[in-house]
Amino acid sequence: MYGVIMAGGSGTRFWPRSRETRAKQFLSILGENSLIEDTVERFRFIVQKEDTYIITKRSQEQAFRRLNLDIPRENILFEPMGKDTAPCIGLAAVHIQQRDPHGILVVSPADHTIKNDGLFQNTILAAAELAERENGMVTIGIVPDRPATGYGYIQIDPSCSPTRNVDTCRIKTFAEKPDLATAKSFLESGDFFWNSGIFIFQASVYLRQLEEYLPEIYDGLMEIQSRIGRSDYEETLQRIYQQIRGISIDFGVMEKAKNVYMVKGAFQWNDLGSWEQVFKLSQKDQNGNAVQGEAVLMDTKNSYVRSEKNLVAVLGLEGVVVVQEDDVTLVCRMDRTEDVKKMVDKLRNKKLTRYLE
Amino acid sequence: MYGVIMAGGSGTRFWPRSRETRAKQFLSILGENSLIEDTVERFRFIVQKEDTYIITKRSQEQAFRRLNLDIPRENILFEPMGKDTAPCIGLAAVHIQQRDPHGILVVSPADHTIKNDGLFQNTILAAAELAERENGMVTIGIVPDRPATGYGYIQIDPSCSPTRNVDTCRIKTFAEKPDLATAKSFLESGDFFWNSGIFIFQASVYLRQLEEYLPEIYDGLMEIQSRIGRSDYEETLQRIYQQIRGISIDFGVMEKAKNVYMVKGAFQWNDLGSWEQVFKLSQKDQNGNAVQGEAVLMDTKNSYVRSEKNLVAVLGLEGVVVVQEDDVTLVCRMDRTEDVKKMVDKLRNKKLTRYLE
Repeated sequence: MYGVIMAGGSGTRFWPRSRETRAKQFLSILGENSLIEDTVERFRFIVQKEDTYIITKRSQEQAFRRLNLDIPRENILFEPMGKDTAPCIGLAAVHIQQRDPHGILVVSPADHTIKNDGLFQNTILAAAELAERENGMVTIGIVPDRPATGYGYIQIDPSCSPTRNVDTCRIKTFAEKPDLATAKSFLESGDFFWNSGIFIFQASVYLRQLEEYLPEIYDGLMEIQSRIGRSDYEETLQRIYQQIRGISIDFGVMEKAKNVYMVKGAFQWNDLGSWEQVFKLSQKDQNGNAVQGEAVLMDTKNSYVRSEKNLVAVLGLEGVVVVQEDDVTLVCRMDRTEDVKKMVDKLRNKKLTRYLE
Repeated sequence: MYGVIMAGGSGTRFWPRSRETRAKQFLSILGENSLIEDTVERFRFIVQKEDTYIITKRSQEQAFRRLNLDIPRENILFEPMGKDTAPCIGLAAVHIQQRDPHGILVVSPADHTIKNDGLFQNTILAAAELAERENGMVTIGIVPDRPATGYGYIQIDPSCSPTRNVDTCRIKTFAEKPDLATAKSFLESGDFFWNSGIFIFQASVYLRQLEEYLPEIYDGLMEIQSRIGRSDYEETLQRIYQQIRGISIDFGVMEKAKNVYMVKGAFQWNDLGSWEQVFKLSQKDQNGNAVQGEAVLMDTKNSYVRSEKNLVAVLGLEGVVVVQEDDVTLVCRMDRTEDVKKMVDKLRNKKLTRYLE
């Protein structure tokens, strides 16, 4: 079993803390460690460190060198540019398949938070057993505890069966982020689960799916695989990545493939998709405020205030997010934090890129 | 005629721009010049520069040295500590009276904004004529254009008479800051005017009032006057100021004195008492926002955003004030900017005084 941590995200939703050279996975958002360190640590329960891989972008090489991750340097694979998850997982697959033709990939984003490590471990082991037994594509579906509108959903065929005491189910369909009414009906039905972005399959099974549904990408990856360990590897990687299209594993593979399964994940999971998510997971004071760093709040409620080094003073407000980091202060209505990435786009359009770097 | 500019305020209401060592009068809030520079400039129309005095606190000496005000250095009088306006004007009065026993004082705060300089000049000249003719205490009442609740009011006896084409009236009473309903009735009555804090009287007349209504302060000032130009002046000043109580000219003198007059000021005036006031006087964009410095606003309305050097990004808010200055960012609801001074008090109580200096 091989761990594959996807760490190529730019994390514009956590601007101004996240920047182009300091993506979300490098931030310590809830605890002391960075999200990538927590993720590597979590994998320690299920795979050897020499079997743990990280896929990231070449532009984040410096940031990785600064970390002291306990995995072999050659296990950090660099993509020349981001092409979404289908090629990213494909690149990991060709490396691992060459090393171990029967290798099983456990693919996970680097920047989510998970509690209950034991439950996580057991769920992954169940998924791996299922993937091997059925030659299937398995994903972890998180048991929803609220009608969340910020996640994609997976609908299962309710006739599940247990593997290692974990419900393993056939997937009926994938659903995009729903509106609130739809999310409520999803929650009530009991057949819908949050799409965690965690996938488990044999490298060879995944590559066969690519061959069928994304043949161009498959061909490119095969060419790359043939150059592993050769001097023209980098050049080939660069050329292929420039040619192939960017597409997600969900849209490009999972929604089309036949042999897809979901394993129920009952562990606590959050994709930390916005400052509001972080606020929800943070400890609050008696006014419902979560405060980090030097800040003074007066007549202020249900707000998230984080200051890197300066003082943030908030007076008479409710439901705001204030994040001071380096040379930027962001002030945002709590229920608009999903749109921080639009603010980042706006800054890019205004050529204020120095505040994004 | 002598100009007396009271420049001892600490201006905590403009924190974080105003600090202990950089009071409101040293800030350029609306235009390019600081408020004190604008005030000195305005006095140029009515008195000679060698007849213009500034009264300030010893702690602001450095800040004054950095300015290049076109008045003689000996005309800057330092109080050892703030004791409100009655002693402050008294100190100016003893200095000026000694120089010119018939001198008329034109007393003005350093940190207000006034437009229509010609009208201002004519109003002051009318007030001075009246003060001399009646041996009276004269104040300028601003013709109100809205039911403001942030100002004290002056009620006049409506039988006014013109001096230099300006209405000069006897004062009936002084009213504290009213609630909105009261302010509306004030506006409708036509007999109520805003208390501008500008006073005109002979030095000798003012000192006679002090002798009657604030005899301790009067005695102290006489002692100080006897030491002017002597080596023990500073020591005496220090000792007297430690003894006397702090009290305003309005409460301590004007409300008690008999021979008090008001001259109608029809010029544009604003005491710049809060960030909200500054917002009201600022130019707005099509979303009703006033923005200074590096700031990007998205889906934000009717807000005041000022950044000294960093970037302030505001998303999805309405009616907020964001002021970034040096190592502080203040985020405040627009209608709570009067309470910024309470925030300053809170910081002082929390021993976060480094953000106030």
